[in-house]
Amino acid sequence: MAGDVRVGIVGATGAVGMEMLRVLEARRYRLGAIRLFASARSAGRRVKFAGEELVIEELKKGVFQGLDIVLFSAGGGTSPEYAPDAVAAGAVVIDNSSAFRMKDDVPLVVPEINAGDCFGHRGIIANPNCSTIITLMALAPLHRTFGLRRVIASTYQAVSGSGAMAIEELKRQVGQVSSGEAVTREVYPHQIAFNVIPHVDQFLESGYTKEEMKMENEGRKILHHPSLRVSCTCVRVPVYRAHSISVVAEFEKAVDVAGARAAIDAFSGVEMKDDPATLTYPMPLDIAGMDDCFVGRLRRDCAFENGLSFWVVGDQLLKGAALNAVQIAEVLQRGR
Amino acid sequence: MAGDVRVGIVGATGAVGMEMLRVLEARRYRLGAIRLFASARSAGRRVKFAGEELVIEELKKGVFQGLDIVLFSAGGGTSPEYAPDAVAAGAVVIDNSSAFRMKDDVPLVVPEINAGDCFGHRGIIANPNCSTIITLMALAPLHRTFGLRRVIASTYQAVSGSGAMAIEELKRQVGQVSSGEAVTREVYPHQIAFNVIPHVDQFLESGYTKEEMKMENEGRKILHHPSLRVSCTCVRVPVYRAHSISVVAEFEKAVDVAGARAAIDAFSGVEMKDDPATLTYPMPLDIAGMDDCFVGRLRRDCAFENGLSFWVVGDQLLKGAALNAVQIAEVLQRGR
Repeated sequence: MAGDVRVGIVGATGAVGMEMLRVLEARRYRLGAIRLFASARSAGRRVKFAGEELVIEELKKGVFQGLDIVLFSAGGGTSPEYAPDAVAAGAVVIDNSSAFRMKDDVPLVVPEINAGDCFGHRGIIANPNCSTIITLMALAPLHRTFGLRRVIASTYQAVSGSGAMAIEELKRQVGQVSSGEAVTREVYPHQIAFNVIPHVDQFLESGYTKEEMKMENEGRKILHHPSLRVSCTCVRVPVYRAHSISVVAEFEKAVDVAGARAAIDAFSGVEMKDDPATLTYPMPLDIAGMDDCFVGRLRRDCAFENGLSFWVVGDQLLKGAALNAVQIAEVLQRGR
Repeated sequence: MAGDVRVGIVGATGAVGMEMLRVLEARRYRLGAIRLFASARSAGRRVKFAGEELVIEELKKGVFQGLDIVLFSAGGGTSPEYAPDAVAAGAVVIDNSSAFRMKDDVPLVVPEINAGDCFGHRGIIANPNCSTIITLMALAPLHRTFGLRRVIASTYQAVSGSGAMAIEELKRQVGQVSSGEAVTREVYPHQIAFNVIPHVDQFLESGYTKEEMKMENEGRKILHHPSLRVSCTCVRVPVYRAHSISVVAEFEKAVDVAGARAAIDAFSGVEMKDDPATLTYPMPLDIAGMDDCFVGRLRRDCAFENGLSFWVVGDQLLKGAALNAVQIAEVLQRGR
């Protein structure tokens, strides 16, 4: 895919779609053309991009002719319906939904970790789950150094992970609580303002949610580590943007904090922000809007002989979604 | 300590002290007398109790004569200074600070778990850390059933755990964010509104905080299980009241969810609130103000062969502090 690339975005008016556009502009992706698609409701809207105005087109079958890459971020229903159409038109699909992630012939890629997997695609490359990407950005360098055996993670997930309407819901509920009005709910089944909800995505028979199992299933695929064991608990918190994850990891080899810190420092896309003496640790309020993931509270774990505990924060709309998808597009443009 | 008991409360104007008074009244504790103590600043204030008005007395040496039990909830500095004076005056001290908890001759008691330890006291009985109590209320019945080996916990702690000023801080910051004003900080080192702070209590050399180590140290003492391994990460969240804890526990014996649920159901002071089909799980907003602790999201753990995952929520001012202290006073009144 040498030279300038003709890119389409499906779901361009959503929280992630808009970030994709910003990321393409900020990273000066070498575009041959850019076209935006959304539902009929949004078609005709104009969007600024690199000093020009783009008009949103209605998503329909047959619109993808002439595109090299189509970034999909339009929910689980849209991708299975339209991605094959884009592939048939000759484009490579980079899909942000969970629809294709676990299919054998679909690479699941975090470019800093397994960029090489991109080249095994058969038309579709999947973008992983947001909490999984952020957690793996810290775990991957530790896995290379010490050999990962087991992960226990608890998440603190921001409302923007549920889209723009969830941001409005938190704002509205905070106002309702302040003024003593009855709190109304549209996005979440329970009040999120001044509360935490231990429930993200649908429940499975096992008692885990789909979101929780993504960290094990997608983590195994991305790290090429089929025996990895992951237990995850996903919790929504009243934060607007950036997900935080509390992680305990057990390793095959003896661990040391200095070695762990050096491994993370040397890994692209993740940084240490960790100095207890100055009360420095990553928090969602500081990390929102940043490309990199940040690790703090790194320490030798109390519960495992070869264990490390840490806290990792990343912007789930950027590295957890839009940025990672654009980075995959960059890998395709660069080639092997 | 048969018959009516003469009780004093030190720190009666604090968030926990006020709850102690309410709990004594609500549980119809058989009082022979009640006296309230606070700093000179609060002395003379009047407080309603069981239809009467009580006048707050200034805390000074020599004020404890004639009291049978003195409940201390006045921070780490006050207890070491005044508790010995109360003991010398013939009272039993039930202390909510961390000052005496790990001393060999001081029982550390959660009455549902180790009430018998109360009777080994030498004048002082310690009330455990709030997150520790709430987590152990779920773990104790599971430990009796399956034999606890290892615990990994991440907390979601409400601001009222830091006292009444922290409640005001969250309220004030939410208003400041809403109106676009600069956010001011007095209690926490970072903004708590619309943020999470992975830091509760002071940092230790190991990289853990004091609060985090309480769950291992106090857990071992309360459960009489010196080899228990606990790794805890404590996080402050923008919730007013009730702490939540995400727990993964590994056991010696094979586990089953039905047996775990039965063990928790049969244990006093903790209840199951767990039905994924109806999106039922405990949340701090629902549990605030309740005496019992509530367990949800109970499931066979993915990461351990003999593991269980769950989510437990409790009101940290009640079972996590005031209620537990009054329950200890009830054990003393009842006797062996």
